[in-house]
Amino acid sequence: MAGNTFGTLFKLMTYGESHGVAIGGVLEGCPSGLTLDTDAIQNELNRRKPGQSAIVTQRKEADEVEFLSGIFEGKTTGTPIGFAIRNTNQKSQDYSHIKDSYRPSHADFVYDKKYGFRDYRGGGRSSARETASRVVAGAIAKQFLKNISINAFVSQVGDLKMDKDYRSLDFSLIESNPVRCPDPETAKKMEDHIKQVRKEGDTIGGIISCVIKNVPVGLGEPVFDKLHAELGKAMLSINAVKGFEYGSGFEGVKMRGSQHNDPFNADGSTKTNHSGGIQGGISNGMDIYFNVAFKPVATVIQAYETIDSAGNTVQAQGKGRHDPCVVPRAVPIVEAMAALVLADYMLINRTINL
Amino acid sequence: MAGNTFGTLFKLMTYGESHGVAIGGVLEGCPSGLTLDTDAIQNELNRRKPGQSAIVTQRKEADEVEFLSGIFEGKTTGTPIGFAIRNTNQKSQDYSHIKDSYRPSHADFVYDKKYGFRDYRGGGRSSARETASRVVAGAIAKQFLKNISINAFVSQVGDLKMDKDYRSLDFSLIESNPVRCPDPETAKKMEDHIKQVRKEGDTIGGIISCVIKNVPVGLGEPVFDKLHAELGKAMLSINAVKGFEYGSGFEGVKMRGSQHNDPFNADGSTKTNHSGGIQGGISNGMDIYFNVAFKPVATVIQAYETIDSAGNTVQAQGKGRHDPCVVPRAVPIVEAMAALVLADYMLINRTINL
Amino acid sequence: MAGNTFGTLFKLMTYGESHGVAIGGVLEGCPSGLTLDTDAIQNELNRRKPGQSAIVTQRKEADEVEFLSGIFEGKTTGTPIGFAIRNTNQKSQDYSHIKDSYRPSHADFVYDKKYGFRDYRGGGRSSARETASRVVAGAIAKQFLKNISINAFVSQVGDLKMDKDYRSLDFSLIESNPVRCPDPETAKKMEDHIKQVRKEGDTIGGIISCVIKNVPVGLGEPVFDKLHAELGKAMLSINAVKGFEYGSGFEGVKMRGSQHNDPFNADGSTKTNHSGGIQGGISNGMDIYFNVAFKPVATVIQAYETIDSAGNTVQAQGKGRHDPCVVPRAVPIVEAMAALVLADYMLINRTINL
Amino acid sequence: MAGNTFGTLFKLMTYGESHGVAIGGVLEGCPSGLTLDTDAIQNELNRRKPGQSAIVTQRKEADEVEFLSGIFEGKTTGTPIGFAIRNTNQKSQDYSHIKDSYRPSHADFVYDKKYGFRDYRGGGRSSARETASRVVAGAIAKQFLKNISINAFVSQVGDLKMDKDYRSLDFSLIESNPVRCPDPETAKKMEDHIKQVRKEGDTIGGIISCVIKNVPVGLGEPVFDKLHAELGKAMLSINAVKGFEYGSGFEGVKMRGSQHNDPFNADGSTKTNHSGGIQGGISNGMDIYFNVAFKPVATVIQAYETIDSAGNTVQAQGKGRHDPCVVPRAVPIVEAMAALVLADYMLINRTINL
Repeated sequence: MAGNTFGTLFKLMTYGESHGVAIGGVLEGCPSGLTLDTDAIQNELNRRKPGQSAIVTQRKEADEVEFLSGIFEGKTTGTPIGFAIRNTNQKSQDYSHIKDSYRPSHADFVYDKKYGFRDYRGGGRSSARETASRVVAGAIAKQFLKNISINAFVSQVGDLKMDKDYRSLDFSLIESNPVRCPDPETAKKMEDHIKQVRKEGDTIGGIISCVIKNVPVGLGEPVFDKLHAELGKAMLSINAVKGFEYGSGFEGVKMRGSQHNDPFNADGSTKTNHSGGIQGGISNGMDIYFNVAFKPVATVIQAYETIDSAGNTVQAQGKGRHDPCVVPRAVPIVEAMAALVLADYMLINRTINL
Repeated sequence: MAGNTFGTLFKLMTYGESHGVAIGGVLEGCPSGLTLDTDAIQNELNRRKPGQSAIVTQRKEADEVEFLSGIFEGKTTGTPIGFAIRNTNQKSQDYSHIKDSYRPSHADFVYDKKYGFRDYRGGGRSSARETASRVVAGAIAKQFLKNISINAFVSQVGDLKMDKDYRSLDFSLIESNPVRCPDPETAKKMEDHIKQVRKEGDTIGGIISCVIKNVPVGLGEPVFDKLHAELGKAMLSINAVKGFEYGSGFEGVKMRGSQHNDPFNADGSTKTNHSGGIQGGISNGMDIYFNVAFKPVATVIQAYETIDSAGNTVQAQGKGRHDPCVVPRAVPIVEAMAALVLADYMLINRTINL
Repeated sequence: MAGNTFGTLFKLMTYGESHGVAIGGVLEGCPSGLTLDTDAIQNELNRRKPGQSAIVTQRKEADEVEFLSGIFEGKTTGTPIGFAIRNTNQKSQDYSHIKDSYRPSHADFVYDKKYGFRDYRGGGRSSARETASRVVAGAIAKQFLKNISINAFVSQVGDLKMDKDYRSLDFSLIESNPVRCPDPETAKKMEDHIKQVRKEGDTIGGIISCVIKNVPVGLGEPVFDKLHAELGKAMLSINAVKGFEYGSGFEGVKMRGSQHNDPFNADGSTKTNHSGGIQGGISNGMDIYFNVAFKPVATVIQAYETIDSAGNTVQAQGKGRHDPCVVPRAVPIVEAMAALVLADYMLINRTINL
Repeated sequence: MAGNTFGTLFKLMTYGESHGVAIGGVLEGCPSGLTLDTDAIQNELNRRKPGQSAIVTQRKEADEVEFLSGIFEGKTTGTPIGFAIRNTNQKSQDYSHIKDSYRPSHADFVYDKKYGFRDYRGGGRSSARETASRVVAGAIAKQFLKNISINAFVSQVGDLKMDKDYRSLDFSLIESNPVRCPDPETAKKMEDHIKQVRKEGDTIGGIISCVIKNVPVGLGEPVFDKLHAELGKAMLSINAVKGFEYGSGFEGVKMRGSQHNDPFNADGSTKTNHSGGIQGGISNGMDIYFNVAFKPVATVIQAYETIDSAGNTVQAQGKGRHDPCVVPRAVPIVEAMAALVLADYMLINRTINL
């Protein structure tokens, strides 16, 4: 399996399956001398953790990160930061019912075909549990980026859409409710909707929006590694993501150029920001904002028909403790991936001039 | 500038500015022994070429590719394929009017800030002319992928949307009209609309859809390099792209899991395909399909106000021969980038089993 | 710090300092389905371990590897293999005497200048302890390469040179003595010499030779990544290495082409092997053999004068439990690095033909 | 074929066969704003060029480099620098005699086995002609490194060794003789020896030494990408190289640690320099020096017996215009590769601190 590494200089490599000994990673390229706030890192993990509210999976996982290297007397040394999160909730017996069958719209079938066999204890490497390692590294990236603020939040659950311009939102309210939607009224509706969906044994999709402020002008490598292309890849690599758009996005296709162009102010800022803070793949100093679409979780608590590895039709029953909607817990993952992209491009950007 | 390379094993590196001597690239990792149809390669370039119809830019560029290495007696040798496309239409004087000012929503401002100065002769490296190199490499990738069909087409221009399931379309009609929309009726409307927009000196955005058939099960590296993540990055790296979605995409967020899940047939194919041919980042053998959103071209033939590099407000006037709508010429670029991704993942996939 | 990753497809990333919590690594790209003999892996670690004989450092380190992921029911799953080796012998107080001074010919000075400060507890990341992670990954690579034999051995200690053609040696004798020299008579002399050097509180250098048999024709990427170039880099990346030569090596410069050329047998093998099994950077099926030069260990148990970080001259005294000669313990490291190179090139070689 | 790229940030990709249309490359990551002296670049090419003296091949090749991108008004723009050197001396008929047979100790046999067929017109991609592209990129790197001096020279031809400490040499004499040995007396002997070897239709090996001055403290990434490891790989990737040693090198194995250690001066410089300017893989500010061993060229102008692709024994006769000794022309290649390594590490080194 290739593709366990993210980034060029600020580079994360992850390992680990949901039901193995541990998950974790190695973060290379974090500059030396950064004072690390480990509580802040653990706090990001807690935002992603199962069992944090009534609308997420009730699995209990400690998700405590242990740092193995790269930190000395509270500061990064410049050497790789190795870390591990032990799996403490591996109830493999829970999964005996799926050992011989493929769950629809999971990765069971493709893993088996690709690798010749599969780790049938839950999702293995395809489990979203893997993203905990991203959150650790992203939390470090956030500390490196200190003046840049990255705020992700839930802007849609199913049909329920928060129809407000992000500039009118109070981001301090994001953590005030279990959905992580900064509009309390919409948040309440979303929460109720998710509860209803769970009651039906079903799941529902949603959209996470993300706003990044105070990005300096000049980040982004302008051909294949445009800033938004790397952000897009970062987001699309998160489990269950089906789409990415930034700035005017899909709606922008309906606009005229005369209307879409962002006129300059004298200081180089722009009067509008349809560009979404990125022009020609390079940040222009305006807010970067984008949307990420998540499909409904594939595990439903219902009876269904499927096939086994021999191609026989079998009856199956979804059970266990799963998320009825993935977006509340995915908010810190979106932020983490955004932080990793920006940290990497910050370092690359140091190398371009004489 | 980093980021001029695309791919891990089937790897393209490009160079060249719109008004330099030439653009071109080096394609590494194309397996040896492939009989190359160079007419087919030139034909792809011609699909992207300016001046091909009344609704695209009327610039005249020969866009003839010269191969410099890697081919012997009509076959690839396994060594890198170097190629160049001479710039034959460099009228630098055309650009004197923009030398000292920044065009809104172009890359002028950010290049200047990032690199300390800019090649003011047109877009330089940020010009979409760079994508011709991608088309050459993508055309080679297509020949390598021979059993896989990749069909991109225009599905929306401004508000005009072709509202048909892709399975009802006849892809042989894509090239039958200058818009490259396989529905002749909608194509005519789109064409008229683009002409109207041009008459007004304005531009309009659009959407390109792409369908890939006959992809074997197993392509994709399932954590950071999920197949759709790499496809997304590939598309987002194309000039003017603002969004990417695959399978159920942004609409999928409204669905329930019970409805979104794709039930298996006995042979491992699925009865529905909301997954868009990719599960857990790995192809499952079903059709891959995705949408790519393009913003309206920034160059409008209108008077506008902007700033110069000293921060003074200046009056400017768009002129020249530009595309009123980029999507018709971007169709082969979308296909080329998709082909590059698939070719690379085909090679990586050879290395995963004993 | 960059450069903690080795390999393109069969790819190892390592982390860890000598006096941190743990050292370890993540091995990506090991094909799925490989039955792992974990005893064989631990055995390779034991060959590198301190305290194994009277002529190596008497430090006690357990060097027990814990696998964290990538293995299921005794087989590799294709996912990354994460592993950790806990540091159980961290006596930081041992190093207080060097906290404020730079040991000559160690990495203290350059780390301090490069990173702004240093982890003064021993060598930190520059400690040869880091190579234990390479031995783990190399042991897995050896199992993947099963038909290829890799035998390294000590051929010189100080002036004592084993002057025998490698084809006359019995490799089964390598492990029969603590020096790891397959010629018992020379081994005894080397052992005595090392003991004498240790008694004097001094250290001595040496040469490790390595012979690789049964390499298939065709490994190696023939421009920048020639097989011997990657082997050379692999060896030069081992602590204390000062030189690398393969085939005829430095002696070959004295030969005439007519004498150096290796005439073919009818089956494509060659009558002589001055090429060292590699021609044009590609393996030709003959034995690959090379020499690696190790300088004497920098830590001597003697009084010396040096400087502190303020540039003051200070008196210092080497102490502790160090290797008088590094080559006996470096034999498994040389083999491990060779195995990593070959495994990676085996995978790359699967991708070059149609 | 992989491995046509060198470097991480200051990154060169090359293409081209000896008898194709052109050779060339793309250099990515050269910082913007560097005023390029193109005469100096061409001058480096001329130092490598065939036909420059009586002791090198008498082939006539213009070796004129054409820059295709990345330079505007005499300065680098930060975008990739594409360049091509046309092959003007492709006499394919010269090679008909080797079409069906494998020349001993050339890459003919291994290329054929690896790729399924070969470009039989000379060495193709394995020809040392490929190194001209490295010289172009290296000449740009030298200009970027401006305060660092890199001087390579011939120190041995066959048995004839210049036995002088490099600090006693006058590097301005290197170009004063066709051998490129800074000791005129030894140079004359070497020249006579090479002429004699040529007369016999034979070839001879040699050693190039290289001295790099004014390298700042701190270059090198200290685990797998140690500065000397990358220099070693760079040198070993040059055609005909069989060995690399730096600092005390192979001789250093005979020394005691107490003797080999380099004591500090108060300013951090060292009283001796057995370390060769690199400690723990990081430059320490002292002179970097190393030796590179070249085997005798495989093409001898003599009759020989070999095999054809069917395994039949055939009689062959070396002919053509070949170098009797490769080292005089390889001097600028060694310098170019050293410059590429240093330029890359200079850029990486900008990213390691806060």
